Amino acid sequence: MHEHLIIIGGVAAGTKAASKARRQNPELKITLYTAEKYISYSACGTPYYISGVIKDKNRLQVRTPEAFKEKENIDIKIEHNVTKIIPETNKVIVQNLQTQEEFEDEYTRLLIATGSHSFIPPIEGTGLNNVFKLKDIEDSMKIKQVTGSAKKAVIIGAGYIGLELAEALCENQIRTTIIEKEGQILKTIDPDLANQIKTYMEEEKGVKIILEDSVTSLKGDENGNLTHVLTQNGQSIEADFAVICIGVKPNIDLARDAGVLTGETGAIKVNKRMQTNLPNVYAAGDCAESVNRITGRPVWVPLGSTANKQGRVAAINITGGYAEFNGVLGSAVTKIFEYTASTSGINEKTAKEEDIDYELAIVSHKDKSGYMPDAREITIKLLAEKETGKLIGVQAVGKGDADKRVNVVATAITAGMTVSEFSQTDLTYAPPYSSAIDPLLIAAQILEKKLGDGISSISPQDLQKYLEEKKACCAVIDIRSPEEYKKWHLKYAQNVAPEELEKKVAENKPENLLICCDEGMTGYIASLKLKEKGCKNVTFIDGGINYLKNTPEFNKK
Amino acid sequence: MHEHLIIIGGVAAGTKAASKARRQNPELKITLYTAEKYISYSACGTPYYISGVIKDKNRLQVRTPEAFKEKENIDIKIEHNVTKIIPETNKVIVQNLQTQEEFEDEYTRLLIATGSHSFIPPIEGTGLNNVFKLKDIEDSMKIKQVTGSAKKAVIIGAGYIGLELAEALCENQIRTTIIEKEGQILKTIDPDLANQIKTYMEEEKGVKIILEDSVTSLKGDENGNLTHVLTQNGQSIEADFAVICIGVKPNIDLARDAGVLTGETGAIKVNKRMQTNLPNVYAAGDCAESVNRITGRPVWVPLGSTANKQGRVAAINITGGYAEFNGVLGSAVTKIFEYTASTSGINEKTAKEEDIDYELAIVSHKDKSGYMPDAREITIKLLAEKETGKLIGVQAVGKGDADKRVNVVATAITAGMTVSEFSQTDLTYAPPYSSAIDPLLIAAQILEKKLGDGISSISPQDLQKYLEEKKACCAVIDIRSPEEYKKWHLKYAQNVAPEELEKKVAENKPENLLICCDEGMTGYIASLKLKEKGCKNVTFIDGGINYLKNTPEFNKK
Repeated sequence: MHEHLIIIGGVAAGTKAASKARRQNPELKITLYTAEKYISYSACGTPYYISGVIKDKNRLQVRTPEAFKEKENIDIKIEHNVTKIIPETNKVIVQNLQTQEEFEDEYTRLLIATGSHSFIPPIEGTGLNNVFKLKDIEDSMKIKQVTGSAKKAVIIGAGYIGLELAEALCENQIRTTIIEKEGQILKTIDPDLANQIKTYMEEEKGVKIILEDSVTSLKGDENGNLTHVLTQNGQSIEADFAVICIGVKPNIDLARDAGVLTGETGAIKVNKRMQTNLPNVYAAGDCAESVNRITGRPVWVPLGSTANKQGRVAAINITGGYAEFNGVLGSAVTKIFEYTASTSGINEKTAKEEDIDYELAIVSHKDKSGYMPDAREITIKLLAEKETGKLIGVQAVGKGDADKRVNVVATAITAGMTVSEFSQTDLTYAPPYSSAIDPLLIAAQILEKKLGDGISSISPQDLQKYLEEKKACCAVIDIRSPEEYKKWHLKYAQNVAPEELEKKVAENKPENLLICCDEGMTGYIASLKLKEKGCKNVTFIDGGINYLKNTPEFNKK
Repeated sequence: MHEHLIIIGGVAAGTKAASKARRQNPELKITLYTAEKYISYSACGTPYYISGVIKDKNRLQVRTPEAFKEKENIDIKIEHNVTKIIPETNKVIVQNLQTQEEFEDEYTRLLIATGSHSFIPPIEGTGLNNVFKLKDIEDSMKIKQVTGSAKKAVIIGAGYIGLELAEALCENQIRTTIIEKEGQILKTIDPDLANQIKTYMEEEKGVKIILEDSVTSLKGDENGNLTHVLTQNGQSIEADFAVICIGVKPNIDLARDAGVLTGETGAIKVNKRMQTNLPNVYAAGDCAESVNRITGRPVWVPLGSTANKQGRVAAINITGGYAEFNGVLGSAVTKIFEYTASTSGINEKTAKEEDIDYELAIVSHKDKSGYMPDAREITIKLLAEKETGKLIGVQAVGKGDADKRVNVVATAITAGMTVSEFSQTDLTYAPPYSSAIDPLLIAAQILEKKLGDGISSISPQDLQKYLEEKKACCAVIDIRSPEEYKKWHLKYAQNVAPEELEKKVAENKPENLLICCDEGMTGYIASLKLKEKGCKNVTFIDGGINYLKNTPEFNKK
C-alpha cells in the first residue's frame, strides 16, 4: 500500500507535524482526524479573546481545514473522533460526529497528538450553568458571552491560565476572586517571587486571592444557574459564573487501550525521536512526555512551544529523516496585567526536592537605564550548581522586560555554561533597553562571587528557619538608614551604620551574624569586608529587606 | 609607601574601577583625576536629554564626587588634567584647571581610563557658532539650548549617535538632514537591514538622509553663525545648527608619551588582565583595545557596556585578585524612533572580509503571536560558520522586540553553540511575547537545514546539472551492494564498499565526491564520516538511488 500518515489531533503538535511531513515528502498521503470543530488554534490566546484584546475569535485559528487541503494537500477531518487504534492491522476506527457513521482507515505511520483536557474535580455543581473551563475556542466563546452581564466571578486555580483569565475578567469590569489550594500562586515560580505578583494583583488590580483553601461545592438556584462557591474553610462566595482552571491531564485513554505505554508522569512514553513502544506509532504534544534537560528525568510540561517542536521532530522521523527532541527546561512565561513572570530550568523548590546543592543570587533592578522614565523594576533569581558552577535555573518577574532575559539564561543553561563563563557575555546596551551592565550580568557577578569567595547568604524563604535555629547565638544587624529601619525591620535587628559595622562586630564578636540591607548588594559588600577581616559565619539576605518585605513569611509581620 | 591607586578619567571605566577597587580593598587610597566637570555620566543617555525624555541633566550623572567621597572614601578631583605620566618614578603631573596650579602625585598602581573624543574632520567652519559634537553632558546642554528656536539641522554621520540624535531633534520639531559618506547608515549592520531603517526614517519620520556624500565646508554669516552645510556633490543645505557625529578616537596621547604601547587598532594595547606594557599601569574603557571573541583579533569597540566590564576586571587585578576580560562580540543596540537595530558577532560584510565561509538564514516574523494587536515585525539574520556549524553572528531590526533576542544569540555564540544545538533551546512562549516557535528558532531551523550538519546533499532534480558542471573533476561513488550496483547505477559511478570508502578517498583525493547509496541515510552518514576526516566537497543524493531511479530525469537511463 501507499504511505499514509494518520494524525489524531488537530491543535499544535498535530497540525505542525502535518505541515512538516508534507514539506519533507510531497507525495505522502496525510489525513488528520480531530473530534473538535476548530483546528490549529492557539489555546494560549483565549484569554486575550475574552479580554477583548483580540476582537475576532477566528484570529485564534492559524489555518482552516480548507487552507490545509488547498495549499498543502492535507485532509483534515474535523468532528471526527478516533475511537480505537488497532496496531495489529495498522488501522484506526473513526466516528463522524455529525453523521454518527463509523469507518476504518489504514495507516503506515500514526501520530498520536491527542493533547490534554481540563481536569474537573469530583465536586458537586460542576455541571451547573455558568460553570466553565478554559481550554479551547468554544470554552472562550462561552465565557465571553457571560462577561457582558456578569459582575462577579470565581476562578478556581491560580496557574498561568487562571491568572491570565483574571486579567481578562478585570478588563471586563468583573470583580474576580481566585481560589487556590496551594500556599502560593503560580507554582512553577518560587513562592517569594510568586508572592510579589499576588501582592500586585491584590493591591493594584483589586483581584481577591484566597490561598490554602479549596472549593468543596458549587451551588445553584432553581434554574441550575451558579450562585455561590463554597470552600473547605467555610467561605461562601457569590458568583455569576466560575471557571475551573485547576490544570490539565494528558489524553491517553485511546493510546493506552491500544497498548501504547505511558511513563511515570502519566503521559505517553516516547523516545527522543517521538516513537512510542509500538512500531510506526509516534506521539507528540500535550499527550506525550518530555525529558528535563537538567535532571535527565521524565517530565510532563504541556506547552504550545514544546508541542510545536515535538510535532516537527515526529514529522521528520515519520518521513524517513532523523531528528531528536532533546527535552525541555520548563521554560514558560505569563503576562499578568503589567507584570511578567518568566522561568526556565530549576527553581529553588525543585532544587531542594532533587537534592541539588545550589547557590543563588537575587537582584532587583531597573530593566533599563535608571534615568529613563519608562524604566521598570524586575527581580531576577539565578541558580547555579555549587559543585560545577553551572547555571541551572532562572526566574524573572516584574513590570519590566523580564521575559527575554530568561531566554538568555535558558540558552546559557542549554549550552552548559558556568556562571563565570556567562558573566563575561557581551550583551547589548543602550539606555532604552538596559543598564550598562545588564541586571542579568549583575546577578551573574554576585553569584560568581558567592560561589568563589564563600560569602553565604540566605534566601527569604529559608530565613525563618535560620532565625529559629540560630536564635540564641545570632546578631541581626540592619545597615539601612535609620528612616528605613523605623519603617520596617526584622525582630531583634539592631540598626548600625555601615561605617560602624566593623567596630561593632569587633566589640561583640557574635557567633553568627545576619546582615540586612536594602537590595542585597550592600549586604553582600559588607559581608565581604567582614570576611576579609576574619569574621566567620556572616550571612546577608538575598535581595535585601525590600525583597523580604514582600515574601509570604514576612509581609504580615 | 602606602598603596595608592590613581585613576585618570572619570566616566564609565574609571568610576567603575574606583568603586570595585574600594569593595575589593577597603584600605586602599584611591584618587581619580578628570579634566571634565562631570563624572560617572551616561554619554549614551545624552540624546534622551536633548529629546526631552529625560528632563533633568543631573539624572545622567549616576553619582557625584561628594557621594564617592562620603560613601566609598574615593577622592575624585574634577577639572584636574593629568598632563604627564612618569613611569620611571611612578608619578603623574596634574594641573588644576581652575587654579592652573600644577602638582605631582605618586601611584603604586595607575589606571588609564582616558576614554575617547569626537573626531572633528579638518574642514572649514567647524569652529563656527552652532556647530557641535555630541560626546558629553556639556555638548548635550549646548545642543539642547539651540533646539528651542532652531528649525533646521544637519547631522554629519549616520552612526548610532547620529541616528539617535535625529530622533531627538525630530521630537523637537526640527527638520533634520543626515549626511553620510558611506553607502549605508549604521555600518555595524549589513546594508540590506540598514536600508530598512533608512527607508523607515525617511518615509515615516521625514528625516532626510544623504548617502555617499561628504561635507566639504560649513559656511557662516558675519556673526560667525552657521548658515549652510556644503557637500562634495555640490549640495548646499541650510541649517540653524549642525552636529558632527562622524565617530570617536581613543585618547591615547598621554599614555603614548609615557611609553605605553598602542595596538594595531590605534587604542592602548592591553592583555586580558587589562595590563599595559608598563609595570603597574593598566588601561580600561574607550582608550583600550579589546579582542573579538570570534576572530581572536584585536578590535576597538568603544561602548559603555565594555568600559564597565573592563573597569571591573582592571580593579580586581589592581587589588591583587585575578580576573580576565575575554573580549567582545561587538554587541550593540540602538533605538531609532520605534525601530530597534541590534547586532552581535560577525555580520556578512565582516565574514567576507575575514574570509569566513558562512551560511545564513533571514527570517521576517512578528515578534509576538500574529493575532496580538501589538505584534510588530522583526527581521533576524543569523550566521553560522559552514565548517563547524557554530553560530557566529546575529542581527535583528524592526519595530518589534529585537534587542533581547540578539542577546539570546550572543550567549549562544559565547558558549560556542552550533546551530543544531541552539535550535533545540527551550525558549519561553506566551502570545504577548512570541510566537509558539520563536522567530529566533525558526531562523535556526532554516539555517540548520541549509547547513545540513555541514553535509551537502543534492536533490535528484538538481543532479543532472551538478554532474554536467563537475563532470571532469568529480568522483561518483556508489556504496550499495554489488548486486544493487549491477541492477542500476549512475554513469561513471564506481562501486565501493562503505568500509573501503575512506581508504579509497584517501588514495584518490577527488576534488568533488558524489556518494550514491540506497535511500539517502547511509550516504548521509558516509558523508558525515568523510567530512570528519577532513574531506571537502562531499555530496550525497537526497533519497538515494532508490528514489533517483524513479525520477523523470533518470528513470529512462
